Amino acid sequence: MGVEQQQCADPKSGFAKLSALLDAGSIAIVGASADPLKLGSRPLTLLQQHGFAGPIYPVNPGRNEIAGVKAYPSLRAIGQPIDLALILTSAEGTVAAIEEGITCGVRSFILFASGFAEDNDEGIRRQQRITALAQESGSSILGPNCVGAMNVATGLCATIASVGEVIEFERGPVSIVSQSGAIGGYLLDMALRAKLGFSKWITSGNEADISMADCIHYLAQDVTTQVICIYLEAIRDPYALRLALAQAAEHGKFILALRSGRSAAGADAVASHTAGLTGDSQICDAFLAQYGVQQVGSMTEMIDAAKMLVWGARHHVTAPALVSVSGGAGALMADAVCAHGLVLQPFGSSVTQAVHAALPSFAKASNPLDLTGMVGANPTLLAKVLEPIILERQHDLVMVFIGLMYGTAQGLVDALVSASGNEACPLVVIWVSAPPSAVESLRRQRIAVFDDIAQAASALQLANGLKTPGPVFRCLPPVVQANRSPGVALTEVGAHRALDAIPLLKLPDEVLIQISDDVSSMTRTLAFPWVAKLQSPQVLHKTEHDAVMLGIADTNAATQAVKALVQIGQDLRVDCEGVLLQEMIAHELQMIVGVRWDALYGPLLVLGQGGVEVEFERDVAIRLLPLSLEQIQEAILSLRMAKRLQGSRGRTPIDVRSLAQMVHSVCETYLKRTDMYELEINPLALSAPATFTALDMLLRLADPVSALPVIEEPNTNYH
Amino acid sequence: MGVEQQQCADPKSGFAKLSALLDAGSIAIVGASADPLKLGSRPLTLLQQHGFAGPIYPVNPGRNEIAGVKAYPSLRAIGQPIDLALILTSAEGTVAAIEEGITCGVRSFILFASGFAEDNDEGIRRQQRITALAQESGSSILGPNCVGAMNVATGLCATIASVGEVIEFERGPVSIVSQSGAIGGYLLDMALRAKLGFSKWITSGNEADISMADCIHYLAQDVTTQVICIYLEAIRDPYALRLALAQAAEHGKFILALRSGRSAAGADAVASHTAGLTGDSQICDAFLAQYGVQQVGSMTEMIDAAKMLVWGARHHVTAPALVSVSGGAGALMADAVCAHGLVLQPFGSSVTQAVHAALPSFAKASNPLDLTGMVGANPTLLAKVLEPIILERQHDLVMVFIGLMYGTAQGLVDALVSASGNEACPLVVIWVSAPPSAVESLRRQRIAVFDDIAQAASALQLANGLKTPGPVFRCLPPVVQANRSPGVALTEVGAHRALDAIPLLKLPDEVLIQISDDVSSMTRTLAFPWVAKLQSPQVLHKTEHDAVMLGIADTNAATQAVKALVQIGQDLRVDCEGVLLQEMIAHELQMIVGVRWDALYGPLLVLGQGGVEVEFERDVAIRLLPLSLEQIQEAILSLRMAKRLQGSRGRTPIDVRSLAQMVHSVCETYLKRTDMYELEINPLALSAPATFTALDMLLRLADPVSALPVIEEPNTNYH
Repeated sequence: MGVEQQQCADPKSGFAKLSALLDAGSIAIVGASADPLKLGSRPLTLLQQHGFAGPIYPVNPGRNEIAGVKAYPSLRAIGQPIDLALILTSAEGTVAAIEEGITCGVRSFILFASGFAEDNDEGIRRQQRITALAQESGSSILGPNCVGAMNVATGLCATIASVGEVIEFERGPVSIVSQSGAIGGYLLDMALRAKLGFSKWITSGNEADISMADCIHYLAQDVTTQVICIYLEAIRDPYALRLALAQAAEHGKFILALRSGRSAAGADAVASHTAGLTGDSQICDAFLAQYGVQQVGSMTEMIDAAKMLVWGARHHVTAPALVSVSGGAGALMADAVCAHGLVLQPFGSSVTQAVHAALPSFAKASNPLDLTGMVGANPTLLAKVLEPIILERQHDLVMVFIGLMYGTAQGLVDALVSASGNEACPLVVIWVSAPPSAVESLRRQRIAVFDDIAQAASALQLANGLKTPGPVFRCLPPVVQANRSPGVALTEVGAHRALDAIPLLKLPDEVLIQISDDVSSMTRTLAFPWVAKLQSPQVLHKTEHDAVMLGIADTNAATQAVKALVQIGQDLRVDCEGVLLQEMIAHELQMIVGVRWDALYGPLLVLGQGGVEVEFERDVAIRLLPLSLEQIQEAILSLRMAKRLQGSRGRTPIDVRSLAQMVHSVCETYLKRTDMYELEINPLALSAPATFTALDMLLRLADPVSALPVIEEPNTNYH
Repeated sequence: MGVEQQQCADPKSGFAKLSALLDAGSIAIVGASADPLKLGSRPLTLLQQHGFAGPIYPVNPGRNEIAGVKAYPSLRAIGQPIDLALILTSAEGTVAAIEEGITCGVRSFILFASGFAEDNDEGIRRQQRITALAQESGSSILGPNCVGAMNVATGLCATIASVGEVIEFERGPVSIVSQSGAIGGYLLDMALRAKLGFSKWITSGNEADISMADCIHYLAQDVTTQVICIYLEAIRDPYALRLALAQAAEHGKFILALRSGRSAAGADAVASHTAGLTGDSQICDAFLAQYGVQQVGSMTEMIDAAKMLVWGARHHVTAPALVSVSGGAGALMADAVCAHGLVLQPFGSSVTQAVHAALPSFAKASNPLDLTGMVGANPTLLAKVLEPIILERQHDLVMVFIGLMYGTAQGLVDALVSASGNEACPLVVIWVSAPPSAVESLRRQRIAVFDDIAQAASALQLANGLKTPGPVFRCLPPVVQANRSPGVALTEVGAHRALDAIPLLKLPDEVLIQISDDVSSMTRTLAFPWVAKLQSPQVLHKTEHDAVMLGIADTNAATQAVKALVQIGQDLRVDCEGVLLQEMIAHELQMIVGVRWDALYGPLLVLGQGGVEVEFERDVAIRLLPLSLEQIQEAILSLRMAKRLQGSRGRTPIDVRSLAQMVHSVCETYLKRTDMYELEINPLALSAPATFTALDMLLRLADPVSALPVIEEPNTNYH
């Protein structure tokens, strides 16, 4: 596909929407209150507290002045340009306020009220009106059902969240986008406590206009943002999100995602919270991973990973050095980093000599290095071993374990600070039951400190995961944004007729037989043994109806099989196109290769172990289309069964590159043939080195026409 | 096996050893120092600080008095009964100090010096001497290379660890045993910060006398201990540990274990730390699980789990109610508890009515219950929903999520405290970015508070895991404590001859053929098709040498196969007992069933998926022998392949009870036949409902005799 046919990430759309809001120089507050107990009082207080320099216009028909600032009866009455209007009225008043604002030339709005799509049908209609207003006017609208946004650079603290009351905001390379206001507040509070600081903070609520995709679009291009932390409840436009994520990847941003709705109960809770859905959880996981987004398990884990990314390891760490004041903790550290696949490299002679000079009683300087409790009496020992480790340049991160040691904490902090700052070999610290002042000092020096070993090891794994993303498509063909709905299913022989040849995909030699046919005259070219299969578009899972017969050794047996299968079709009262006789194919392994349309995510590929095993050993990779050959190869190699492809006990390996080429052809065919809804090849027989035969296939066309009722069986393969 | 032949947990041994030490009424300190910078000064200071009431005798030949207490030149010079002597001298002086103490009637010792088995050969000899002294004299000796022990009830703070300096010790139901002094200190500090308190604290170091098993033996019977937290680097006597763990299970104690040495690098670090080993990590995991010990991933996770056990859920929680001040957090909570297998039950009508009365705008009272940020303005809302939930008695735990809310923290604490205290429905709190005073207040009220959702959900899972342990054997047959070393391996036909019939285990009909034999005359009773296998004790993995031929359809083919296999044997230059011809057995599934001797843990059973799959899909259960029928059935059902045993697509299921009976017979045979080292049945063919046929078997006898060199292949099955 040529780029000219494709849609690429538009660098303006999301960026322009968020810029209008976050770079606002003047702010009106509709529903501003003088009562400090009311939420309506908060934005003015917070904008003043955080030093927003532009004009602020409280709008309250009952007051002339609020908190020393002149108040206005309406937006219209202000008579000055307004970049941003905060709308704190009820849901009912919100639409009117926007309409008034648009006529006054207000460029952007934040809507705080709830009572929209998350609530009831009337709310859904109100929200649709807001979406329409944004599209008609070109204004940017954040919310409704959100708690606002912040830009730390300008003191734009446009929020009702109590986290805004934290006195000390620090600038930092982390930006936060949350579809829940509360979670957004907790994440910001945790980032500020960790001294990470932040750049932008956006709560997007119901996303009537500005979406998660827009926010990522903006932050991808925001030079003050390195790490984007998102809390995700709903994916409303996966197409736009893919383009935004591709742009973030291009700009080298790290994206950490905390997602809810993984369980059925969680998804129900989300639906009544912000009216959102992330669709099939497994597809969502696959989608985020494919676009280089690292999911985290908790808010704490997200902030720990951000800490590691910002202050710990900006590079991909492969050779950590472990230093501990406790032998037991050293062993636990070794276990923790090795569990994440890292290997511990020994120290070189310069470190060994330095350790022996500093700690003469030591037998050996191994990694992990156990400094023993002697460091408690003499904290300079720590500096004496850290310096040579960093200078030796054989390790690319030093993880230091300390516990308690209140008496010599300052000496240890000094040693750590003096060893820190080397980009090629950064220092991270685990300090169990640490003196709070020591943690504070280290954080002020931009040294990542963790509470326990597991947290540091997990943060390192998450950070490493972000630094090895696969390639992503910067542009997408428009066909991906279309929709396809399920239509009629074809029989195997019907599918064979409907499909053009797919390069590298073999079909078995076959003959379709009717009950009245003479088997022996029609099958002269087929070599024994054969398989016989009933062909009915209403019997898609043939083995469950005993509609497949294997190992047919001669034409007599074949004639009997045809009779028996036709009888089964009659018993099931289904239409029968005939009985398909095929040569049986000797093979070593079976896979499933499927392409289908997901109602939310569009076209996707499902690869995995095939045959009966599928049900018991879930070994499946899901990827959104389009895919490059390299991405398909990576997907194949991500399967547990990849080990089997490599051959064992002297068997010839399967040529994975050829397999990927065949799968790539299936994907390209699917994208081009918009009349296809689903094509599932299962089992696909693999014979070394590169013979791939579709032993069965199911093709369901798109767009329903007068389809016969299908006898559906639960397909547990990957749904 | 009758109980009279078996060895049972002796309620005295470990208990007596630890009692002599922890209940000491008088303490001598050999190597007491007057210099507060020296470790030798610490025990006296700490014993005074924590109010130890008995006499303390510092021993220091250079001083008449230390810290206001009369000092003595030697143990002998004290002239009073001494229950416990703390030996703070160097490694060299330690043995002499013990010898002197024994002659003075000292009942117990704690040895702090390092320089023993963890160090060098001389250290190993010194440690052996200490072990001998303990055995000869009946004294209890803790250490060497430890940092002491504490009994909070008597102020016995016999330690050099800095954690002893924490001013405020609280009594509580947690006891800690650590093979690392430092880790022991961190765990105690974390327990004290969590306000859990503690009962006993023991660091066991190199365990020359008192072992981890002794400590668990003691704590099993300690009425003030409910939860035993252990840090495990070394299992020195698995037999004693099994008896101790069985006793702890009998007394209803919960045991949480943090273990190091899981990775090769971690195991190396442990070996140089306390000279310990836990053997094969997978067997150690299986052993601990079998004995109801719950492993944790970090110190933090251990303390969180202890909190949940002590203050949260003493019962097995099946129906948690989730209440949140944030819809997003409610969804995350739902995901987290559902990920651990719990199901969320809806609220009943009384709760629904109460919620509607308290929050009229709510559409429904679902679980998780989203109270929204309105609670921030009105904290009594929390009490109004918690009370009906607890009274309704349809849920057995309430997990409440709060974040920030500094303004109304006291009101929320009051609501939580008033709702707490119901044994049938305890309250646990997750409070993200909590005000420290709120956490402190809740902990003082014995309410478990967690930092984040993942921590609470994980603690609940760990606590639930402990409340559903399987049965454990209280007594063990002495044969388990013996040793067996690998001897000669038999061929399959040799194994068939050496074994008596095992109930329910079928062997294929077979004939052993020599090259000179007439195949057709010897095989009249065998039905086709056949399999032919070379029989050589030097070719144990026959398929890898093409020494198996399948699908032999007539006697001519069999004669050819015999010739070919004998030729393969000649080419390999191995001894050949002949060629085994067997009927091929149609079957549905394959398993591996093996019993063997582990050098550390003794006899064990390995069960799993069999055949070629074993290498690719690791699906194995390991259990230490002896095992009850129920335990074997549980082990079978723990396999992923258990789903296949249940049958699918209309297939008859395998009778798991019969399968367990067959495996039980294999285990009993192995325990009785002390001449067996290893018996591996792989593949075991399973046909529904209860036909189990050993398609191949490997029997290795115990005790090496003049064995032929075996052509060994790496066995990746489970080692």
